[in-house]
Amino acid sequence: MVELLTSSSEYCFAKRLRFLMELKEFIHFPSISAQPEHAEDVKRCAGWLANHLRQIGLVQVMVIPTKGHPIVYAEWCHAPRKPTVLIHGHYDVQPADPLNEWRSPPFEPIVRGNDLYGRGASDDKGQLFAHVKALEVLFQTRGELPVNVKCLFEGEEEIGSPNLPDFLVAQRDSLAADIAVLSDMPMLAPNRPAITESMRGMLSLELEIRGADRDLYSGLYGGAIDNPLHALCEIIASLRDREGRVRIAGFYERVRDRRPRERTDMKAYGPSDTEILHSAGVQETWGEPGYALYEKTTIRPALTVSGIHGGYQGTGPKAVIPQRALAKLDFRLVPDQTPEDIERVFRCHIARVTPPTVRTFVRKQDSAKSAMIDRRHPAMCAAFSAYRNGFSATPVFLRSGGTTPVIRLLQGMLGIQTVLMGFALPDDRVHAPNEKFHLPNFFNGITTSMCFLDEFADGSIWRNRRLVPPEFQNGVA
Amino acid sequence: MVELLTSSSEYCFAKRLRFLMELKEFIHFPSISAQPEHAEDVKRCAGWLANHLRQIGLVQVMVIPTKGHPIVYAEWCHAPRKPTVLIHGHYDVQPADPLNEWRSPPFEPIVRGNDLYGRGASDDKGQLFAHVKALEVLFQTRGELPVNVKCLFEGEEEIGSPNLPDFLVAQRDSLAADIAVLSDMPMLAPNRPAITESMRGMLSLELEIRGADRDLYSGLYGGAIDNPLHALCEIIASLRDREGRVRIAGFYERVRDRRPRERTDMKAYGPSDTEILHSAGVQETWGEPGYALYEKTTIRPALTVSGIHGGYQGTGPKAVIPQRALAKLDFRLVPDQTPEDIERVFRCHIARVTPPTVRTFVRKQDSAKSAMIDRRHPAMCAAFSAYRNGFSATPVFLRSGGTTPVIRLLQGMLGIQTVLMGFALPDDRVHAPNEKFHLPNFFNGITTSMCFLDEFADGSIWRNRRLVPPEFQNGVA
Repeated sequence: MVELLTSSSEYCFAKRLRFLMELKEFIHFPSISAQPEHAEDVKRCAGWLANHLRQIGLVQVMVIPTKGHPIVYAEWCHAPRKPTVLIHGHYDVQPADPLNEWRSPPFEPIVRGNDLYGRGASDDKGQLFAHVKALEVLFQTRGELPVNVKCLFEGEEEIGSPNLPDFLVAQRDSLAADIAVLSDMPMLAPNRPAITESMRGMLSLELEIRGADRDLYSGLYGGAIDNPLHALCEIIASLRDREGRVRIAGFYERVRDRRPRERTDMKAYGPSDTEILHSAGVQETWGEPGYALYEKTTIRPALTVSGIHGGYQGTGPKAVIPQRALAKLDFRLVPDQTPEDIERVFRCHIARVTPPTVRTFVRKQDSAKSAMIDRRHPAMCAAFSAYRNGFSATPVFLRSGGTTPVIRLLQGMLGIQTVLMGFALPDDRVHAPNEKFHLPNFFNGITTSMCFLDEFADGSIWRNRRLVPPEFQNGVA
Repeated sequence: MVELLTSSSEYCFAKRLRFLMELKEFIHFPSISAQPEHAEDVKRCAGWLANHLRQIGLVQVMVIPTKGHPIVYAEWCHAPRKPTVLIHGHYDVQPADPLNEWRSPPFEPIVRGNDLYGRGASDDKGQLFAHVKALEVLFQTRGELPVNVKCLFEGEEEIGSPNLPDFLVAQRDSLAADIAVLSDMPMLAPNRPAITESMRGMLSLELEIRGADRDLYSGLYGGAIDNPLHALCEIIASLRDREGRVRIAGFYERVRDRRPRERTDMKAYGPSDTEILHSAGVQETWGEPGYALYEKTTIRPALTVSGIHGGYQGTGPKAVIPQRALAKLDFRLVPDQTPEDIERVFRCHIARVTPPTVRTFVRKQDSAKSAMIDRRHPAMCAAFSAYRNGFSATPVFLRSGGTTPVIRLLQGMLGIQTVLMGFALPDDRVHAPNEKFHLPNFFNGITTSMCFLDEFADGSIWRNRRLVPPEFQNGVA
């Protein structure tokens, strides 16, 4: 085993530069799933990825069309009596705007220091590609994989995977696997790997306010006609109190209180307030009183206004009462809040606070329930061991405030548990300008992925719970 | 006199189609002063206008460069012992966005029904051009003008005439005139002409809120980091109360209470609530209790949020806490509010309501004091008589909620009183998509302008106050 690892490591080391060039090629595609004008780029990116998977030795490689962007599928199932691992990732990316805040163009990836900069470098092309390169290394150094592998790479993750449920239902049998592994989340630091054990749910809504049927000159009408944009501000202001609690009746009704033991563990193993502030680049803590920042972002729900658009946007002044105003709202939900409940209480709130002078319209854009991972699943031990090999450090369990709807889908529709092994860092600027991926994490991620497949192939992990190291058991409580 | 008018009328009638084609040509230039990318269009428009003035018989025609957009000047001063009239107008226009709400392209003017549609059709190209065509008719039918005329056509009115004060100071002597006439305001209806006797002042500010130094993923940070966009909404909401009063301490301090007699007259001669609602295309009244809509828009100050920009603006959702948010604010001021006072109390308010989690920045963009016209000036009688001839209806005095800084500048810097003779209509959609100019007003405006010059040339108006018709004196009280 040691010899084998060394050989893989040597191959990996020898090919570092090529791996990096290939990742840059992958990031070069502006595969922005949210913007229809990039549909062709998403398709080209899918084609490139499929071709790459074919080249490294996977079979049954397919670019599967959906009603939206295609899914890339590939497998290698020539390990009879060995378990099957489903590797999930996504090759689509977030929009890159505001473009003028990027130090280098978002789709011309560039290395500065130990980091590779570009949209999707971390979320999720870089992390996905670590698994792909792990498969290549295994094929090249052994001629085979230690387990059966199925790769499912989505092109619509950033828009809420609207066509994934249908696909999963239709392909239930061919997607059967013992475990899914997904790398689309942060560790704590380059030397502090983490296994994510919970993610928040999500609900994104659009709120539109309409007034007159046209923009009005504010000189002539200012003071006499209500302003949808001002009304929008008042409605948005009504959604939270001074301390950051959400002020929608019924919003917290089904939020679970966490046990003191859980909160103690979070304090011991999670990021501190200081670390979270540092990674966000801000000075001041904020939000619901009585909780640490780590708790506020994971075991407490949140409401974010992610965009407002109304009135004149150009240079200089323009004296108008705009006819309409639009806000994009992003809720993060915890057990046992459901998107349906929250949408309902939100609509009630809006109906209650809308003045008679304007009309409001609420549109649902996307939603996902929160997800919890079973800590006692044997795959957790494989992940533990893999991280120790890949990053020379003991991982901890981490809760995430983010949302990856596919976890719930895999669990609910296919009965597959997911291991969330992130290779990202908290300061990767995911979804923001100057997104980057820490290159040591890329290469350590490749090793970690290889080790995970090896450990998972080893039947002992399934039979003997005592293999779980005691410090790990403590760590996860 | 009657014979002369008939002859002018005949000429005017015969040339209607050409006048309309020329106005369309004038509107065709996208002379948007607020947008630097249109600087060349503004210049081309100035050149076209100057050339046109030269063709109809004016002399000393000049396109005078400023630090911004040029001023077009022309004159005809060959009427010794006759008074001098300064005709002011502007050939620049408001931005045309939102473009997708125009029924026809804003700079491809088109006639539908009795209206000419296009950006600037009413504000101010159409109204300005009525005076230009009046001069042409007089030159063509008499070979001369009844008074000395100076034309001052600005290219920066829509951005607050930043370079006009310097120009006025430098050209004080050559601009000397007995009266200025300006047509950039609405009448009450096609058969209800009006002389505007007051305009509100104006202050436009930009409010920027900054949080983190980058956009943050709201999944990872939502609930823990304050959101500049949400904070902006709270700050905007703090600026007015539920009934529409501005809630900034000191805002109303210097607002003059109008005398009961003035308010009775406004009720008698001004537009009703129903008319104002109809012209705005809205159902519900709104604003400061205790005032009619006409009062709210003229003798009471107002605050309008004219634009907000923050976070994601594209299609679909994007889960971000934006790093910054921007609002454009437009104040309308009445005597004796000064822009300086209002900026000061606004800055105090913002400092008081800014939470420690964000930083706020206030930038002044533009300002102008309110303006009052002297009802007893002899030129008012000339205007009265001119409207009766041009529109076959008796004009009333009207207050305007809008702002035309040049009135104060002409009065303050050159000592020239201004007559505000509007040819626009309340539903012209000034500053909004589908702006239009009512063509009967264009042609009646030409006649009105000719009569005004004739009446003003007639010395009797200066000597005998009894010429002012009694119903006019009543009407204006």
